[in-house]
Amino acid sequence: MHEPPYSGRFEAGAHLFAVRVYFEDTDAGGLVYHANYLRFMERARSDMMRLAGIDQRGTMASGEGVYVVVEAGLRYKAPARLDDDLVVVSRIGAVRGALCAVHQTVMRGLETLVEADISVALIGSNGRPRRQPRRWIETFERMKRDGTY
Amino acid sequence: MHEPPYSGRFEAGAHLFAVRVYFEDTDAGGLVYHANYLRFMERARSDMMRLAGIDQRGTMASGEGVYVVVEAGLRYKAPARLDDDLVVVSRIGAVRGALCAVHQTVMRGLETLVEADISVALIGSNGRPRRQPRRWIETFERMKRDGTY
Amino acid sequence: MHEPPYSGRFEAGAHLFAVRVYFEDTDAGGLVYHANYLRFMERARSDMMRLAGIDQRGTMASGEGVYVVVEAGLRYKAPARLDDDLVVVSRIGAVRGALCAVHQTVMRGLETLVEADISVALIGSNGRPRRQPRRWIETFERMKRDGTY
Amino acid sequence: MHEPPYSGRFEAGAHLFAVRVYFEDTDAGGLVYHANYLRFMERARSDMMRLAGIDQRGTMASGEGVYVVVEAGLRYKAPARLDDDLVVVSRIGAVRGALCAVHQTVMRGLETLVEADISVALIGSNGRPRRQPRRWIETFERMKRDGTY
Repeated sequence: MHEPPYSGRFEAGAHLFAVRVYFEDTDAGGLVYHANYLRFMERARSDMMRLAGIDQRGTMASGEGVYVVVEAGLRYKAPARLDDDLVVVSRIGAVRGALCAVHQTVMRGLETLVEADISVALIGSNGRPRRQPRRWIETFERMKRDGTY
Repeated sequence: MHEPPYSGRFEAGAHLFAVRVYFEDTDAGGLVYHANYLRFMERARSDMMRLAGIDQRGTMASGEGVYVVVEAGLRYKAPARLDDDLVVVSRIGAVRGALCAVHQTVMRGLETLVEADISVALIGSNGRPRRQPRRWIETFERMKRDGTY
Repeated sequence: MHEPPYSGRFEAGAHLFAVRVYFEDTDAGGLVYHANYLRFMERARSDMMRLAGIDQRGTMASGEGVYVVVEAGLRYKAPARLDDDLVVVSRIGAVRGALCAVHQTVMRGLETLVEADISVALIGSNGRPRRQPRRWIETFERMKRDGTY
Repeated sequence: MHEPPYSGRFEAGAHLFAVRVYFEDTDAGGLVYHANYLRFMERARSDMMRLAGIDQRGTMASGEGVYVVVEAGLRYKAPARLDDDLVVVSRIGAVRGALCAVHQTVMRGLETLVEADISVALIGSNGRPRRQPRRWIETFERMKRDGTY
């Protein structure tokens, strides 16, 4: 009775992550509630990192730190609705020190619904930014260059 | 660049729907926040209905009504954590008039984390229960008997 | 520019906690999403415990454990809508060992929208139930008997 | 047994709205989940509009349109934690046509945790931007100039 959870994939230089819109994602205006696109994008980033071999739970448990969002810029261009079939497209941007930039768009077919620039930073257990491990930086650089890991 | 959203499936007399636990699902206690299992279970029910040909968005748009939860009983047996790989197992129970009962369990491998009995009712645009369309009742009865649609 | 956060209060043998319904709480059906009443009820329980001198954050930080919901039974009687002005009414039930039962209703004026029986258990850092500190049990017993702390 | 819901207030040229951090707001990293600050800020904007006499539910029901977020820029400077006592400080910016800009900061005492620039637009039932009613524009202009309504 095993059923593995959905995992996105890399294609054409980007990470693709499909999202179905459920009742929980919408609000009384009939559209997806604006904050929930950040949830969709975080699922996509988590999955992209998991595919690339970066274990956030293990890292957090071992005290090596946790990624937090330090900046987010979102342009909402068109709304999504209940039952819509969306794709989050993620591309790595600048990577340096504690920081990693990710450009993310939420698409419905060929239409761009939301465009976002998200910066995450690795934060140590003391609450301060800490340099990302070399192999993670190399992984992000490879994803940035080749669109895969 | 199309990537279809995940959809569960029917197997062995039940509907299976996989869920990955993301940061959004957890709380500062380090576990999945208790209300969020209801979100997982609603995703599974929505998907089960979609697979069975019941179009909730169309039904709502045409004024034929919307399913709402009228009763929920949850027993939390063990907690889920970040990155866990869960399956929601759903089985149809009694179906009559406006009501449909669903028995749902959230599993991690062979371990039952949450057991739930959920009753939903079809509510018309006047806010009152209305008899489910005959073909939906037949679909639910078939799912109950055969574990598929 | 200080503005203290809202805190409920004890009155007539119960704890009262007011909730305004915002867009985030509703879904495309135009009503409050069913799982979100559990969030309202958890806010009320947290506040009731804070008023009674039980510091959940401190307890968690010191490794003394955290309360988790182990059972929840909800009857949804009437829906709440955007901008509604609700009150969560909480009463302590049976208290013993690791367990504390709370009866909670969500009211809109004199109308009961949701009735719930919630059982919480104190869980130690090893993930197992642990006996509640004597002074907390005494506080809960006092709240149960007198409707205040 | 009536208990009115909390409502923020205008002071010193801004709208202040207090928020207590509950378990639902946090994640397994022990901090407030980044998307949830958008929920706090939307509560504050809704309340600011309600105080100023703008009835979002009535407007939506009458088909006059609904405000949606069209752009959001967030700088996360320091994290909030469980039980924290926060204040959302909101100031109206440029108002023209369908658009209204709001500058919002989430404070913990004198410390700025999150700074945000949010643009909302009034959207008609056809899904297109529509000019805000003159009296609302006047209200926003007054709030911008005087810091109250």
